[in-house]
Amino acid sequence: MAVSFNYSNSLSFMNKSELDHVSEFVNVAHNRLHEKRGPGSDFLGWLDWPIRYNRDECMRVKKAAEKIRNQSDALIVIGTGGSYLGARAAIEALSHSFYNQMENTTKVYFAGQNISSTYITHLLELLDGKDISINVISKSGTTMEPAIAFRIFRDYLEKNYGKEEARKRIYATTDQEKGALKKLADEEGYESFVIPDDIGGRYSVLTAVGLLPMATAGLDIDQMMTGAEQAYYKYNNPDLSTNECYQYAAVRNILHQKGRDIELLVNYEPSLQYVAEWWKQLFGESEGKDQKGLFPASVNFPTDLHSMGQYVQEGRRHLIETVLQVTKPAIDFTIKADPDNIDGLNFLAGQTMDEVNKKAFQGAMMAHVDGGIPNLLIELEELNEYHFGELVYFFEKACAISGCLLGVNPFDQPGVEAYKKNMFALLGKPGFEKEKLNLGGFSIVG
Amino acid sequence: MAVSFNYSNSLSFMNKSELDHVSEFVNVAHNRLHEKRGPGSDFLGWLDWPIRYNRDECMRVKKAAEKIRNQSDALIVIGTGGSYLGARAAIEALSHSFYNQMENTTKVYFAGQNISSTYITHLLELLDGKDISINVISKSGTTMEPAIAFRIFRDYLEKNYGKEEARKRIYATTDQEKGALKKLADEEGYESFVIPDDIGGRYSVLTAVGLLPMATAGLDIDQMMTGAEQAYYKYNNPDLSTNECYQYAAVRNILHQKGRDIELLVNYEPSLQYVAEWWKQLFGESEGKDQKGLFPASVNFPTDLHSMGQYVQEGRRHLIETVLQVTKPAIDFTIKADPDNIDGLNFLAGQTMDEVNKKAFQGAMMAHVDGGIPNLLIELEELNEYHFGELVYFFEKACAISGCLLGVNPFDQPGVEAYKKNMFALLGKPGFEKEKLNLGGFSIVG
Repeated sequence: MAVSFNYSNSLSFMNKSELDHVSEFVNVAHNRLHEKRGPGSDFLGWLDWPIRYNRDECMRVKKAAEKIRNQSDALIVIGTGGSYLGARAAIEALSHSFYNQMENTTKVYFAGQNISSTYITHLLELLDGKDISINVISKSGTTMEPAIAFRIFRDYLEKNYGKEEARKRIYATTDQEKGALKKLADEEGYESFVIPDDIGGRYSVLTAVGLLPMATAGLDIDQMMTGAEQAYYKYNNPDLSTNECYQYAAVRNILHQKGRDIELLVNYEPSLQYVAEWWKQLFGESEGKDQKGLFPASVNFPTDLHSMGQYVQEGRRHLIETVLQVTKPAIDFTIKADPDNIDGLNFLAGQTMDEVNKKAFQGAMMAHVDGGIPNLLIELEELNEYHFGELVYFFEKACAISGCLLGVNPFDQPGVEAYKKNMFALLGKPGFEKEKLNLGGFSIVG
Repeated sequence: MAVSFNYSNSLSFMNKSELDHVSEFVNVAHNRLHEKRGPGSDFLGWLDWPIRYNRDECMRVKKAAEKIRNQSDALIVIGTGGSYLGARAAIEALSHSFYNQMENTTKVYFAGQNISSTYITHLLELLDGKDISINVISKSGTTMEPAIAFRIFRDYLEKNYGKEEARKRIYATTDQEKGALKKLADEEGYESFVIPDDIGGRYSVLTAVGLLPMATAGLDIDQMMTGAEQAYYKYNNPDLSTNECYQYAAVRNILHQKGRDIELLVNYEPSLQYVAEWWKQLFGESEGKDQKGLFPASVNFPTDLHSMGQYVQEGRRHLIETVLQVTKPAIDFTIKADPDNIDGLNFLAGQTMDEVNKKAFQGAMMAHVDGGIPNLLIELEELNEYHFGELVYFFEKACAISGCLLGVNPFDQPGVEAYKKNMFALLGKPGFEKEKLNLGGFSIVG
């Protein structure tokens, strides 16, 4: 069953016939996408990426990862947004829960995703005396947050290893031809990987953007691409009645039309927390425009059943709960009887830990449905590279169809520029003098 | 200025006179709270806790922490919900960004907050060969998730150290008199600390629940209590025009009445991520009932400016943005000029990293207000124990007032029981046979 979608526990909130009403719209969206003629059609490189990605580059990624693993205690991945969340999501989901604390691993740390002077100083303290390499990921090379971090780490490398050796420890993932980082990489001779022109940041996890950090952490990126390829074929089907990816897109839109304004992505495995963060960027940035869009939020259950659970059960009824469930856990064990049974839990004896986890999921799902929250269920057969690749493609394509149904361009992000203009004006960037004059009327504090 | 609140960048979304309209209601809420006569008044122990907490117990907490630090490489904190999030929030906010990876620290790990067989197996692998102690935190001792984890770790301790030594490595934070854990602690002679009867889980961070893990991580809990005490006096003032804690409560309610259904807590320091998680429980569990309540969500900026930023700028206009800002960073440094300036960032040279971070905040805040999102600003003078204590009290009291204005009992959580009933029925817990019969009609999958 691989990745599967089930909306049966939403049927008390919608009629199955409502799907019939939208099935022709879904066909339109499918055709627009596959004929590359909707808004944002310059950014559809991800659509057939799993069947046309550059195998030679993928081989180079694996070789580079091998080299990094041999030459370094840690890889510093410098990137933000889509150049950060995908790799982090994959590594946290698929590696050891305490990967960076285990012995004999090449650690992976992230930088350039924030501008915290404390964070970056602490990271440098942690790395003191360790051998490191850098993977700087930026289409332009001028996005401010990663560019600052790259200045700091490049300087650090040059001081520690000299200019010559530093060059061999810097891997650039950037534009194929142009931009500040590409220019620098060519001049300095950094090994470079390509961010394709037609794949936007939030859709880039299966390019070198995500693959190099993942391979460095020991993930099997070939399996991941095979999973994505399988999903490409599986979801290349305009028929809503059989395409579960499109069903997810359609059902969330139908529920949204009824006043469900927040979609809550729920997991029962803590390692999926950053998959939810990646998902939030994918859907939030694709659909949050023109004053529209389901607001994407996430919780980790059962932890947050003791926190946000009260709200989900009895708060404002504007939620959709989408559970991302792993069918077969990586590891499982049986709970034993305790002779004293002071905690009264001996009724669990003989059941496995994961069986208990599944019952918590079922119990919560049923309680929330009874409480008025429609439930969508996305099941992942196993948490491995293959199914992760499938899941990425499932969400990417669902997001494209969903955005089209919502009536937005799912592939642009015009709103991201607004804060940058203000920020550059405040920072005194040449060329932003005029903007600075427009910043009156605000109470600038902090 | 310590902790301060500023709503001036919401004034294009509300009139200041609207605060006058609610000021009498705020007075009612204040009086109800201080006269302990509103709904949930059995759970107001937190209100004057900072001036009446048990100093002797606090001293014992510090001694126990010292002992744990001497005898163990790691402390395993077993708890969920309010017995988990507060300590984690404090330790992540106030310790080294990579605390558990630094040398010569007593590591702090959390268990019992999930039922992941993978997570707990990985944690046991990580701890292999290390000396550990346990702090099990549960009012009853029968909450399932921590009780399972405690069974596992108690067994682990007894196998590794023998029954006698294991007893000396278990610290129980539980009910003063009754309950399964209290009984066990008395029988086995575990050192015990008290969860007061009149302080609910989400309000318990400044009791031994939070303080023992924090002290073990080296935090100055006396300073934290002093900060909370200062806040107690500062916010013990019914006058809305001068009480900023009450202003926060009032303004978020006024904006909610205008259709703002989501409050987004924003930070610019990644170490505040779990403060947001703690805040989500506090507000979500207190207000999410009777089909009401602002939905609490959170983002880490500037990271998420490249993710959820698009939604905030141009998506559905149902958000309030509340920024939790640190005025003075723990560490700062100046950005240097680069002779090549390939990234074009030399305009930053001579500015400090934190100045740039602040400009990102200001730029984003202004862009979001222009885009139609009211901004609330909570400033923390410095990220230290004293101000953390203040902030906790600020939020706790604001939440109590806010819940009262919303017309709910902010101190109960009736909805948390619903999933437990189903789960126990599914797990075959004795006494839940009848509930099991009521679970028909669901598509049980996963």
